[in-house]
Amino acid sequence: MKTYKIAVLPGDGIGKEVMPPALKVLDTIGRICDIGFQYSEYDWSCETYLATGSMMPADGMDRLSQHDAILLGAVGYPTVPDHISLWGMLIPIRRDFDQYVNLRPVRLLPGIRCPLADRKPGDIDFWIVRENTEGEYSRIGGRFAEGTDAEGVVQTAVFTRHGTDRIIRYAFELAKKLDRPHVSSATKSNGLFHSMPFWDERFEKMAAQYPGTRIDSHHIDILAARFVLSPEYFDVVVGSNLFGDILSDLGPGVTGTIAVAPSANINPERRYPSMFEPVHGSAPDIAGRNIANPVGQIWAASMMLDHLGEPEAGRMVLRAIETVLANPAAPRTPDIGGKASTAQFGDAIAAAL
Amino acid sequence: MKTYKIAVLPGDGIGKEVMPPALKVLDTIGRICDIGFQYSEYDWSCETYLATGSMMPADGMDRLSQHDAILLGAVGYPTVPDHISLWGMLIPIRRDFDQYVNLRPVRLLPGIRCPLADRKPGDIDFWIVRENTEGEYSRIGGRFAEGTDAEGVVQTAVFTRHGTDRIIRYAFELAKKLDRPHVSSATKSNGLFHSMPFWDERFEKMAAQYPGTRIDSHHIDILAARFVLSPEYFDVVVGSNLFGDILSDLGPGVTGTIAVAPSANINPERRYPSMFEPVHGSAPDIAGRNIANPVGQIWAASMMLDHLGEPEAGRMVLRAIETVLANPAAPRTPDIGGKASTAQFGDAIAAAL
Ligand SMILES: CC(C)[C@H](C(=O)O)[C@@H](O)C(=O)O
Ligand SMILES: CC(C)[C@H](C(=O)O)[C@@H](O)C(=O)O
Repeated sequence: MKTYKIAVLPGDGIGKEVMPPALKVLDTIGRICDIGFQYSEYDWSCETYLATGSMMPADGMDRLSQHDAILLGAVGYPTVPDHISLWGMLIPIRRDFDQYVNLRPVRLLPGIRCPLADRKPGDIDFWIVRENTEGEYSRIGGRFAEGTDAEGVVQTAVFTRHGTDRIIRYAFELAKKLDRPHVSSATKSNGLFHSMPFWDERFEKMAAQYPGTRIDSHHIDILAARFVLSPEYFDVVVGSNLFGDILSDLGPGVTGTIAVAPSANINPERRYPSMFEPVHGSAPDIAGRNIANPVGQIWAASMMLDHLGEPEAGRMVLRAIETVLANPAAPRTPDIGGKASTAQFGDAIAAAL
Repeated sequence: MKTYKIAVLPGDGIGKEVMPPALKVLDTIGRICDIGFQYSEYDWSCETYLATGSMMPADGMDRLSQHDAILLGAVGYPTVPDHISLWGMLIPIRRDFDQYVNLRPVRLLPGIRCPLADRKPGDIDFWIVRENTEGEYSRIGGRFAEGTDAEGVVQTAVFTRHGTDRIIRYAFELAKKLDRPHVSSATKSNGLFHSMPFWDERFEKMAAQYPGTRIDSHHIDILAARFVLSPEYFDVVVGSNLFGDILSDLGPGVTGTIAVAPSANINPERRYPSMFEPVHGSAPDIAGRNIANPVGQIWAASMMLDHLGEPEAGRMVLRAIETVLANPAAPRTPDIGGKASTAQFGDAIAAAL
């Protein structure tokens, strides 16, 4: 039996509530497919920060590095400014483990009300490939003339050829692997004078190496509108850290809810562990009530299985999610029209396996 | 009779096609309301750039400054890189004339198919207030290690207290004027370490001066999803240059088409002329066929009337647009399901006045 070492970071808020159902689903699929999981659970969170002044212990990254993958719940809580909590844990993990691919499916699932008119499951089904380590997310910059009327801030984005090429290449390779040879690029070269013309240049250079792949490039403003007007159009969409972030909440919004969407932070070279998390955040407004939708976390676990080299197990988990959602009599959480608790919904998915 | 001096800049592509109907509507409303317009038309465009090496003549800004307002079509054409054409005309006008407010309505009009399920005209109706002179749109930065593997770019955004406060204040004042005391702010303080925490700070400071106004703040990613999931929620949304840009294409997307949306670039102190344009671009793919939808340009003219101090004339133009759109038998362009040409559609709106 193959056994994987998984670092489990429930984090804050509903992260702590959606993690147990995901682990239960993993244990169930493990029994079915003869895969073992050895979990190390770490309670690093905003509570840790308030108690100790840092989100993770000093040897946190070292400990994580001894695992095959990381399953994360959500980070962030009202008592700690977001830019502290995120830059103290989530973002360093993405960067120090060189998880430069953030891969997010946009897929209309059965049983989820689509906000768009006349769409059914299958109509919307594409992938967002987001750059995850550089770009607009940056600590470079600071404040000038602090406290005076002349006060301001500068914030500097950095795009390297190394960072840009590898994410764009991943998108082209993914399109090839999926046998959907069509890559759309998010740009804003008409407004962002330096970064985006460079991005476009690298995109075109890479495209030349994939002559069989259809390409198009859209300014982020009109691209956002097209996600709503013609989501069927897309196969693989590649964007910078910020643009990918926006598109990968918008996409799940277009398919009905961000509560069910997963996010894989991947180091494709497997030099470091990759990290899997739901797209949703810690949702302090509903935390503690056991009503959070666990599907995002469970789907993240499915993507983790795929990455670990257990694609069949991953597919089975996704199918179990779809089976439960497609059954109007099956339990579901209130956010998608049901009355079940987080645990009951998770149990139903585990049972469907 | 009050007469206004209007600088007319059709620009590129369909800009040249949607401008004549807008001028016709202006002339018609002028006759009805006893308002005169004195137009100076300038053919500054990408063609000018290709012929002369610059988008505008050296005294371009001087000439524009002698007008009460500027009516712009669209700028940009495939033969000239966007960042050249835009930074050579559109963006300098916005900045040098201190048009720091970019005001854009999001409104579901009658007769326009809404991509969202179960929405009717009136359900979606709010305003986006976009910062228009600083922030992410910046020429600060450049390329390093050009041509080598270590190549990259830096791109620096600058947010000042001056620039941030005035746009946020405008949003609060607008909410008060509309008697819809609710302002939503677009942020991303969890990813953009310097700029957005500063934006949030200024937003909260300003909000304290408007105790009767309800406020909320959303990260741009989830805000984009909320535009799709619950557009009814919004009254006035304020965002930075980039976030406002994205939201103000997404909003029109959510209401069916960006072809009908207008954009007002306002210098509220009236020290310089303000500029009015459709949200859509030059659309090279359909240019030259006389099928472009002129509503965005005509609605922009309506906003111009409002700004010039002729709000009743502005309202009449908007009502004429709505009357024609609401009538299934009236002419309309192919993009919204009709067979009319740009000119025929414009004529129908002028006739409805
Ligand atoms: C053409 C481009 C520079 C412009 C912008 O981003 O400001 C356009 O998208 C707009 O919204 O007016
Ligand atoms: C929490 C935040 C920093 C994060 C991001 O923007 O990357 C989140 O929105 C996400 O998409 O994973």
